[in-house]
Amino acid sequence: MSNHSGYKGKSLEFLEKHNLQVGNIVSVETDSTYSGILMPRYEYNDDKHIVLKLKSGYNIGLEIDKIKKIGIESSVNTKKETMVQPHVDPKLPKILLVSTGGTIASKIDYRTGGVTPALTAAELNATVPELSKIANIDTEVLFSEYSENLLPEHWKIIAEKINTHVKSEYRGIIIAHGTDTMQYTAAALSFSLSGIPIPIALVGSQRSSDRPSSDAALNLISAVRFLVECNTGGIYVVMHNSTSDDDVACHWGTRVRKNHTSKRNAFQTMGGSPAFIVKKDKIEKNPQFNVIKNDYIPKINFDTHVALVKYYPGLDPKILDHIISSGYKAIIFEGTGLGHIGKVMYEYVGKAKKKGLFLGMTSQCIDGMVRMTVYESGRDLLNLGMIPLGNMIPETALVKAMWALGNSKTIEDMEKIMKENIAMEFSD
Amino acid sequence: MSNHSGYKGKSLEFLEKHNLQVGNIVSVETDSTYSGILMPRYEYNDDKHIVLKLKSGYNIGLEIDKIKKIGIESSVNTKKETMVQPHVDPKLPKILLVSTGGTIASKIDYRTGGVTPALTAAELNATVPELSKIANIDTEVLFSEYSENLLPEHWKIIAEKINTHVKSEYRGIIIAHGTDTMQYTAAALSFSLSGIPIPIALVGSQRSSDRPSSDAALNLISAVRFLVECNTGGIYVVMHNSTSDDDVACHWGTRVRKNHTSKRNAFQTMGGSPAFIVKKDKIEKNPQFNVIKNDYIPKINFDTHVALVKYYPGLDPKILDHIISSGYKAIIFEGTGLGHIGKVMYEYVGKAKKKGLFLGMTSQCIDGMVRMTVYESGRDLLNLGMIPLGNMIPETALVKAMWALGNSKTIEDMEKIMKENIAMEFSD
Repeated sequence: MSNHSGYKGKSLEFLEKHNLQVGNIVSVETDSTYSGILMPRYEYNDDKHIVLKLKSGYNIGLEIDKIKKIGIESSVNTKKETMVQPHVDPKLPKILLVSTGGTIASKIDYRTGGVTPALTAAELNATVPELSKIANIDTEVLFSEYSENLLPEHWKIIAEKINTHVKSEYRGIIIAHGTDTMQYTAAALSFSLSGIPIPIALVGSQRSSDRPSSDAALNLISAVRFLVECNTGGIYVVMHNSTSDDDVACHWGTRVRKNHTSKRNAFQTMGGSPAFIVKKDKIEKNPQFNVIKNDYIPKINFDTHVALVKYYPGLDPKILDHIISSGYKAIIFEGTGLGHIGKVMYEYVGKAKKKGLFLGMTSQCIDGMVRMTVYESGRDLLNLGMIPLGNMIPETALVKAMWALGNSKTIEDMEKIMKENIAMEFSD
Repeated sequence: MSNHSGYKGKSLEFLEKHNLQVGNIVSVETDSTYSGILMPRYEYNDDKHIVLKLKSGYNIGLEIDKIKKIGIESSVNTKKETMVQPHVDPKLPKILLVSTGGTIASKIDYRTGGVTPALTAAELNATVPELSKIANIDTEVLFSEYSENLLPEHWKIIAEKINTHVKSEYRGIIIAHGTDTMQYTAAALSFSLSGIPIPIALVGSQRSSDRPSSDAALNLISAVRFLVECNTGGIYVVMHNSTSDDDVACHWGTRVRKNHTSKRNAFQTMGGSPAFIVKKDKIEKNPQFNVIKNDYIPKINFDTHVALVKYYPGLDPKILDHIISSGYKAIIFEGTGLGHIGKVMYEYVGKAKKKGLFLGMTSQCIDGMVRMTVYESGRDLLNLGMIPLGNMIPETALVKAMWALGNSKTIEDMEKIMKENIAMEFSD
């Protein structure tokens, strides 16, 4: 059976003509020579290219009109890998791994060239055999989405899934998640499951497990060690802490930001240090770490009538009119410096306040406190009804606003929730 | 003559009743006791508070209804400070200092309590006497605005002012500027004055010169030393490089970002090191520093029909319809990770492309390259006509788009300009 998954039109003709199929290792001559696995294509792709996965792990699109020569180096390997169920040791604690998709949950299937979730217990065991010595891990696939496609409705499903297992046999839960929007999901879970008694670790990887520099295995092993040993509750993002393979950071779910597109240590705790560092031989707790002790009363609602407005010179203040007339109920501003926006905006800010919108101020500096009493600009905005949001990072403030709005009857209630420190979103 | 600048209604009555005026040093008892200078108030302020500038440099608003006791510690000092014109040494190079406002150009006038630009040559000499040993400095006030109020039309005026002095006796020019939007102005000047043969230093301060921790003097002295000694052209942001007073960084105008709301070393070069470091005894040049050698042909136009769209889960894709129908000609996306936005946006992205808008992708990670060929999401967006913008930081990409649009006849021309490395905006 031939596999031309996703190819259409000219590119499909091209594959048929050369008797190629997805998963073949091919060598291609254009201006340069390339060798790699012929990859499948997707819905929005054109019919002018074929895609190869190079040995470096990167994919490359090659225009078929520019291909001078193409040949098979080795054909599709139809031999199934033997996968063994992990050994269950009844003395070890149980962990649940819930997959939502992303690089960490993917591996290149060398039989088909496709990306598939590698998440049955047997597959996980085959990929990271070390795990079975730390815990007995059950696996469950919730979605299989790149995280840029996850929406607040997915946050809700993830939170509900976790909530059903809070009083179960599991010592903790791993959420395998794409790194693109991991910080948004972490914030959403931190608020909606505030006070959760067991630890939840969002784990991703910046480089897929078929690449030599992959961080997938270390992040997973560290997350399982953390869940088993940490003896605390809460929502954490567990990712590489340095460029070496030495340690892995457990970041507060509300204070973490992806600050680099590709580095393995892209995630950073803003306005402080990570809650825990998982080292080779021990787990170090941040001495400033004090979980806010809330009762666990899950509130799993989000209302997306919240707009994030990043201020910049030249921003048309009429955007606020559009936001008001579109039915939004709250605006989170990413102001400049200590929490400012240009005075061209004031009239429109006043209008939004009059219409009853919640107006919160964060800083596009990302780090540091908003302080709106230092300069006239800040004081003017306070007088117009702007609420300063301390050192809450903008993305967390946005998610918190969606959550606060989803769990309030009035804007006054929402404002009260926004000012409360619920899940370490204010760090001083 | 009494001075109640900006006070009105109840707060004005309060001042009159207690025989107080702006500039008095007063002690106030509420729940605590405060001592400071009575400050003027501004247009949008209410009539329920008075404002004191404390010795710490911070201003505090005190509700008049909660004031138990208020008294004058010392009255308005009407004695004028004696200011001496700086000594002019004809052997020293000439520097022009153009002020646009901001903390660096302000000092508290202890006669009136007001914030005034301290920028006559005599005043500068009184504040930073060291300057007259390095250069003869002429001063000029262009605006007196907090930088959050500066708009693209101000960028134009600043660029034109600089351009009139390029072939003059000045070795270099300092632009005193608020720190809030300094990076936007620096990018605007970098593009519009690309190839400028003399050095331009944007200088600000994070803490005003009446505060003990002020960075104003060191930043100014370092900027003047840099302009006199650097022997190169271009646009730089010159600000503290560390929390100590040891060194000052000269950042590329297109690669600099304000990454902390209040630290003196808030500014950082993204994707590399600063171009120069001004140390106590020498100026160190970054060995990777290679100014792009463009001819100097100033192009001082900006078209603000550019929208910056930061993607987040829950963003209503219909915002793109609003942008299209409002007559925008370009959108700079702040995508997630390597340059992605959720697939809920695709239909609308396609519409925007069909309408002929320029669509450029940057990353909200701030650091690292956009790479849109690694995942399907990126490749889908490339197929829809999205242009990846390498490691250009989002704010620089926005400013460049306004400039490219202002200097292009067609969107095709603009796209060509956006892909060119004009002022180090692409660093690899």
